[in-house]
Amino acid sequence: MKAQTIRVTVWNEFRHEKTNATVKSIYPQGMHETIAARLRQEPDITARTATLEEPEHGLTTEVLANTDVLTWWGHAAHHEVSDAIVDRVQKRVLEGMGLIVLHSGHYSKIFRRMMGTTCLLRWREAHEKERVWVTDPTHPITAGLAPYFELPNSEMYGEHFDVPLPEEQVFISWYEGGDVFRSGCCFRRGMGKIFYFSPGHEIYPIYHNPVVQKILVNAVRWAKFQGNTAVKPFYGKMTPALEIIAKSDYHADPIAHPVK
Amino acid sequence: MKAQTIRVTVWNEFRHEKTNATVKSIYPQGMHETIAARLRQEPDITARTATLEEPEHGLTTEVLANTDVLTWWGHAAHHEVSDAIVDRVQKRVLEGMGLIVLHSGHYSKIFRRMMGTTCLLRWREAHEKERVWVTDPTHPITAGLAPYFELPNSEMYGEHFDVPLPEEQVFISWYEGGDVFRSGCCFRRGMGKIFYFSPGHEIYPIYHNPVVQKILVNAVRWAKFQGNTAVKPFYGKMTPALEIIAKSDYHADPIAHPVK
Amino acid sequence: MKAQTIRVTVWNEFRHEKTNATVKSIYPQGMHETIAARLRQEPDITARTATLEEPEHGLTTEVLANTDVLTWWGHAAHHEVSDAIVDRVQKRVLEGMGLIVLHSGHYSKIFRRMMGTTCLLRWREAHEKERVWVTDPTHPITAGLAPYFELPNSEMYGEHFDVPLPEEQVFISWYEGGDVFRSGCCFRRGMGKIFYFSPGHEIYPIYHNPVVQKILVNAVRWAKFQGNTAVKPFYGKMTPALEIIAKSDYHADPIAHPVK
Amino acid sequence: MKAQTIRVTVWNEFRHEKTNATVKSIYPQGMHETIAARLRQEPDITARTATLEEPEHGLTTEVLANTDVLTWWGHAAHHEVSDAIVDRVQKRVLEGMGLIVLHSGHYSKIFRRMMGTTCLLRWREAHEKERVWVTDPTHPITAGLAPYFELPNSEMYGEHFDVPLPEEQVFISWYEGGDVFRSGCCFRRGMGKIFYFSPGHEIYPIYHNPVVQKILVNAVRWAKFQGNTAVKPFYGKMTPALEIIAKSDYHADPIAHPVK
Repeated sequence: MKAQTIRVTVWNEFRHEKTNATVKSIYPQGMHETIAARLRQEPDITARTATLEEPEHGLTTEVLANTDVLTWWGHAAHHEVSDAIVDRVQKRVLEGMGLIVLHSGHYSKIFRRMMGTTCLLRWREAHEKERVWVTDPTHPITAGLAPYFELPNSEMYGEHFDVPLPEEQVFISWYEGGDVFRSGCCFRRGMGKIFYFSPGHEIYPIYHNPVVQKILVNAVRWAKFQGNTAVKPFYGKMTPALEIIAKSDYHADPIAHPVK
Repeated sequence: MKAQTIRVTVWNEFRHEKTNATVKSIYPQGMHETIAARLRQEPDITARTATLEEPEHGLTTEVLANTDVLTWWGHAAHHEVSDAIVDRVQKRVLEGMGLIVLHSGHYSKIFRRMMGTTCLLRWREAHEKERVWVTDPTHPITAGLAPYFELPNSEMYGEHFDVPLPEEQVFISWYEGGDVFRSGCCFRRGMGKIFYFSPGHEIYPIYHNPVVQKILVNAVRWAKFQGNTAVKPFYGKMTPALEIIAKSDYHADPIAHPVK
Repeated sequence: MKAQTIRVTVWNEFRHEKTNATVKSIYPQGMHETIAARLRQEPDITARTATLEEPEHGLTTEVLANTDVLTWWGHAAHHEVSDAIVDRVQKRVLEGMGLIVLHSGHYSKIFRRMMGTTCLLRWREAHEKERVWVTDPTHPITAGLAPYFELPNSEMYGEHFDVPLPEEQVFISWYEGGDVFRSGCCFRRGMGKIFYFSPGHEIYPIYHNPVVQKILVNAVRWAKFQGNTAVKPFYGKMTPALEIIAKSDYHADPIAHPVK
Repeated sequence: MKAQTIRVTVWNEFRHEKTNATVKSIYPQGMHETIAARLRQEPDITARTATLEEPEHGLTTEVLANTDVLTWWGHAAHHEVSDAIVDRVQKRVLEGMGLIVLHSGHYSKIFRRMMGTTCLLRWREAHEKERVWVTDPTHPITAGLAPYFELPNSEMYGEHFDVPLPEEQVFISWYEGGDVFRSGCCFRRGMGKIFYFSPGHEIYPIYHNPVVQKILVNAVRWAKFQGNTAVKPFYGKMTPALEIIAKSDYHADPIAHPVK
């Protein structure tokens, strides 16, 4: 079975890089270029980028139709993301596009849309150390990792994290300031897979960290749709039945079903 | 530990009862009154009703603040439910209000909001027999039930049912026409519990069925918030830290966080 | 609905209290008496005790038949627990007896039997501080608790904890030495509920801690069977069928099924 | 990423083929040869076989060490499988060997060992039709499948199926006689993945069915360990700590921990 190319779109708000000197010095072309550049080093991954300011936030129907996995980093401008684009992204995830949500993207419209919860958490910016522990060593996202890795400076994200119970718990983090957080969480929605990964505060070079980069590569491979590409589920009215029904008057009292 | 009264609001679209003679003859005061009347027979349950046509669909801030469990039946007018009311209901569920979604309510705005998926399924109206099997005999919702019960006439709902993997699978149904369906599904969102139960096609007297009624009573008791009423989770900025942080400059590069 | 009395059996290895002066001074009558005494303060709970040295480890058929919830603390003598008694306890859990496994009980025969995994973890005895965070504030086991509590001295238990993915994640702990651990985990096996709770190193007065005691009380109430007491699931040969089968020769080629 | 060869061992009780003329005519060389032959058609799969009567049931330490995925079919002689071999197989699964359990293997020692439950169910032999529905169309095991497939003759397996809640629900079956069953269930134990698949009654040519064969091929690919092969989780004593601990006397009161 040959490896198929995975087409990734790396979405970034791309505001802090323009207004904050520290962030600009860490990500001169934008966080999206740093992430995309690393992904492109893999023979089975191609990556494009998209940002908030572009028309349709760079997420045109054509871009999304040709995206296997979308990564998302946003922070201060979640409210500026158009609802129509969020609808479009949600639809693609439910059709099988993978979604990797990073750091402050926990509060993005798209993540909150997929979760149905507030996605709130606690936070603190104090240059504190974070230690990320692997809690599912069988998971493809942890391939090649040691039992833990450290980020000397990170933004604390702490429990209670208001998301549905993750279907897979890949990482849990320890913070110097005394907190814990479920920092690597997997979910399925429709035909799509979603990975939330919390490290990534913009004033630290976290997406230059080789372990973090390795995790993003693993996550892209995991998030790509691997199910049934040939035959989609059938929704809607199902007639005739597959078995004989004794009272076979299908429409004794027909009622319009506009949305089915 | 004394039993506390559970305050239920039974919401019903209340359209078919007015336009369809069969439905009207089955539920003369509306499906909501049938369900509420049965719930009120329990000493620990009080029930009120609310319908689509009422101001704010009967779901005022005060009504919702005094509702422990909301039941929801809708079908042909999901699109007429105001988004602002859906926001309000979602907020209450995330605060701990239980939600019981019935039959065609699978496609309601509120259920789709909580799930994040399409919630689509297959369906057929053919007066076919449905047999509901208990697949979780430990679950409080199945208290007092036999291993299965039958509905002589039902609307077939069939897989694939596009919801996130249920956290508890209480019932699975068999249909005369050859289909299966995960007919009793439990989910948690935020502080609230959600139970989806598929039987309930309006042209059959399903909510008069004593087993179905027993299930609704059990579900109301299950859905009532039983967690930590005294101390709510804390979200937001967390300072000071609980431990000493070596580099304790909390705001080296302060960034406005308007949404946190 | 009146509260029913919950009959608890508190099982303890009861070795360290006899051989270790520190442990003896903390639990003069044994850890089991400390836990049982606290449980008995609740009007809806009665508690008896049982220890390793008693005939049948105190877990006779009659004791187990009259136990709603069994708590288990063992450490240095797991191998001395008779397999026949473990079989008996497993059978009762699968019939609906709740099981609360404490601290080093993670490596007990009964917990490993119910989990199917090694149940291994990392550990360190260094008088380090443990902070237990609530990660499921809706859970009955967390009723009345603050978002976290601290144990000034604890034995570190660290990830990777080789258990199946918990069905509910109630607590996650932070350790002064840099580790994290999923310290409060819920599982269902058959008709029974299992709660694993890691704090409880014997050289510290952890079971005297009022928050820990509150958790044990909550856990006992949660673990008591609340499902279908009237009608048990039916296993085995199912004839006649509930529907007509075209080719109705049930035993075309009979094969002995001794174990079904 | 090149595809690695998956080494499968197909284990079969191989009794019915010798004593039952119908079974012998369907599987002249044994069910194991039929399954292995189909698996070998795949360029990325090699398959060997093993049966009950062989020394060590064909599951020597060397065979298991070189097995990526073990399939298991047993029925009338579960009790004849040596406990020592079951221990060996369990250990390999927990180390990462995949396990596919077929049909009456639900009652095998190894499946019951991994589940911790009775694994009982209802059953009927009546030549009845089974229709297997896909309930997780994203799952790799369903790759290339239609929404359902039919077996004209099958043995009914019915709910309640006493297993822990499956972590993934791939198939649910409909039976002509009125029953339903969770016929395709995925679990994780330790580093290993387990797939239980119920179709496979020996008096019908089910393992010659091309859809069933496709499922076995998909399942073998899914079950192969894809996690972290380089770095295994570390269990046991963890010193020194990763952070400074205020009271750093690791062994104030040393206690022997023979099993950790």
